[in-house]
Amino acid sequence: MFHLLDIIGTMAFAMSGALTAMSKKLDPFGVFIIAFVTAVGGGTLRDVMIGRMPVGWMQDLTYVYVITLGFILTILFRKRLDKLRTSLALFDTIGLGVFTLIGIQKGIEYQLHPTICIALGTMTACFGGVIRDILCNEIPVIFREEVYATICILGGIVFFILRKMNLENEILYLITSLVIIVIRLLAVKYKWHFSPIEHKK
Amino acid sequence: MFHLLDIIGTMAFAMSGALTAMSKKLDPFGVFIIAFVTAVGGGTLRDVMIGRMPVGWMQDLTYVYVITLGFILTILFRKRLDKLRTSLALFDTIGLGVFTLIGIQKGIEYQLHPTICIALGTMTACFGGVIRDILCNEIPVIFREEVYATICILGGIVFFILRKMNLENEILYLITSLVIIVIRLLAVKYKWHFSPIEHKK
Amino acid sequence: MFHLLDIIGTMAFAMSGALTAMSKKLDPFGVFIIAFVTAVGGGTLRDVMIGRMPVGWMQDLTYVYVITLGFILTILFRKRLDKLRTSLALFDTIGLGVFTLIGIQKGIEYQLHPTICIALGTMTACFGGVIRDILCNEIPVIFREEVYATICILGGIVFFILRKMNLENEILYLITSLVIIVIRLLAVKYKWHFSPIEHKK
Repeated sequence: MFHLLDIIGTMAFAMSGALTAMSKKLDPFGVFIIAFVTAVGGGTLRDVMIGRMPVGWMQDLTYVYVITLGFILTILFRKRLDKLRTSLALFDTIGLGVFTLIGIQKGIEYQLHPTICIALGTMTACFGGVIRDILCNEIPVIFREEVYATICILGGIVFFILRKMNLENEILYLITSLVIIVIRLLAVKYKWHFSPIEHKK
Repeated sequence: MFHLLDIIGTMAFAMSGALTAMSKKLDPFGVFIIAFVTAVGGGTLRDVMIGRMPVGWMQDLTYVYVITLGFILTILFRKRLDKLRTSLALFDTIGLGVFTLIGIQKGIEYQLHPTICIALGTMTACFGGVIRDILCNEIPVIFREEVYATICILGGIVFFILRKMNLENEILYLITSLVIIVIRLLAVKYKWHFSPIEHKK
Repeated sequence: MFHLLDIIGTMAFAMSGALTAMSKKLDPFGVFIIAFVTAVGGGTLRDVMIGRMPVGWMQDLTYVYVITLGFILTILFRKRLDKLRTSLALFDTIGLGVFTLIGIQKGIEYQLHPTICIALGTMTACFGGVIRDILCNEIPVIFREEVYATICILGGIVFFILRKMNLENEILYLITSLVIIVIRLLAVKYKWHFSPIEHKK
C-alpha cells in the first residue's frame, strides 16, 4: 500500500516536472532529466547528506521505469493534461505526504534527532522541485509563494507528537499523511500563501 | 574560544543570507532556507565530497539553533540592521577566517594533500554564499567582483607555510585567521576587486 | 593511452568552461572555478551519488594541475582560441567519449544495473557542463538544443550490447568511444538537434 502510494507520488512529481520543462521549451532530453530530478532529486539529496549510497534510485529500478512512463504519458497526453489538472494536483499531494514520511523514516533509521528527521522529510518532499526550478533558471517557487514546505514541517511535528503517544506505526503514518494531504488541499483550494517579508532598503 | 567564533560566524552568515533573501522578496520559509544554506552550505558540500556523513549540522543541533536565532533576529531588526552593517561585516569576516580553518582541518584529518585542504577551506568559507546566490537566481557574487575566495586561498597558503615551521596549533590558527580577517577588512575598506578578464568575442 | 585521453578531455572541458566564464565577464577566480567545475563536476556528482569518497580529484592531483594549466592557457591565448575552435571541439569530443566510459566503468565496479551505469556515464560526461551553465545563470545548453547527452546514452547502449558478445575490454572501449566521437562530430557538422516538445498552454 505504502509502496503503491510512493509510486503514485513519483509518477505525479515526474509529470509535473515534465510539464514545467515543456513550458520552458526544453528538448526531449531536457524534459526527461527535469522529470527525473523533480521525482527523485529530494530523496537523492537526502541520501547523499545522510550517507546512504549508492542513492536509492540506483538500487531499485522501479523509479526509473515509473519516471520514464510518466515522461512518456506527459508527452503523449500533453494537450489533455489541462483537464486532468485536479487529478494531477491530488496525486502530487499524495507524493508530498508519502515523501515526507519516507524522509522522516530514513532519519529515524540513521538515529538522527526529530528536528533533523523533519528537515529530511521536508527535503525529500520539496527539494526535487527546488532543483527543478534551479535547472529551469527560476527562483524556487516554494521560496516565493506556495505554502508547501511548511505543511511538511507541520506534518513532521504531528508525527513526532503522535509517536510519543506510542501509536502503532500504521496509524501514525496514516494520520500524518492525511494531515499533510488535507492541509495541502485546503491551501490550494483557498490559495493560502505567505507574504514576502517587507524589507526597507 | 574557537567554537565560539564558529558560532559567531554561523550567525553572521545566516543573517547575511536572510538579508539577501528578503531583498529578493522571498516568503518566510524561503528566507529561512537561504539563511540556513548560506550558513552551512559550504561545510555540507565539503562533508559530502570527503565522505563525512551524516553531514555536520545533522549531528550537532547547535547550528540549527544558531541559524534559527539569526533568522528571527534578522526579521525582527531588519529595519535597523543597516546601521549595524559594519558590525555584521566584521562578524561575517570572522566567519570567513574560522570556516577556512575548519575546512583545512577536515582535509588534514582525511589526510588529503595541502592543495586539496586549501580548496576545502575555501569551499567551507565561500560556497554557502555560492549556493545562496544560485538559489536567488544570480551569478555568484564571489565569481564576479568580490575579493573573497582568493583571501581564503592566501590564508591557506600561509597556514601550510607556518605549519612547516612546526608552530603550535594555537598560534598557527591565530595567525592564519588574523591574516584572512585583516586582508578581508582591507579589501572591503579599499574596495579591492579583480577586473573581469577581457575577452575579444 | 586511456589515461592520456582522460587528461586531454579534462583539459578541453576546463578550457571550454573558462571560455564560457570569460564571456560572462567573471573575474579570474570565477573563471578558474567554472573551468574546474566543468572539468570535474560530472565525475564529482557521480562519485558522491555512488558513495566513492573523497571524490576522485581529491585523491589524484593530476586533475588540479591539468585544469590549472588549461585555465592559464585559455587566459593567455584567449584571442587566438577562435582559430583553434575546431581542435578544441575535437578534444572536447574525446572528453565526451572517455568520460562516458569512465562513468560506465565505475557503475560496473559498484555492481549497478546497466541502465544505471549508462546514466552514470552520461552524468560523468555531461553534468560538468550542466553545473557550469547553472553557475553562469543559464538554462543548461544540453537541455535545450545540443544533441550531446543522447549520444552518450547511445554509446552506453552499444557498450552493453558488445559486452554481451564477450569482446575484449580494449576493443569494447575502442568501439564505444569511436561511436560516441563519430556521432558527436557528425552532429556538430550537420547541426543535428532535437526540437522542443510543442506544448499547448
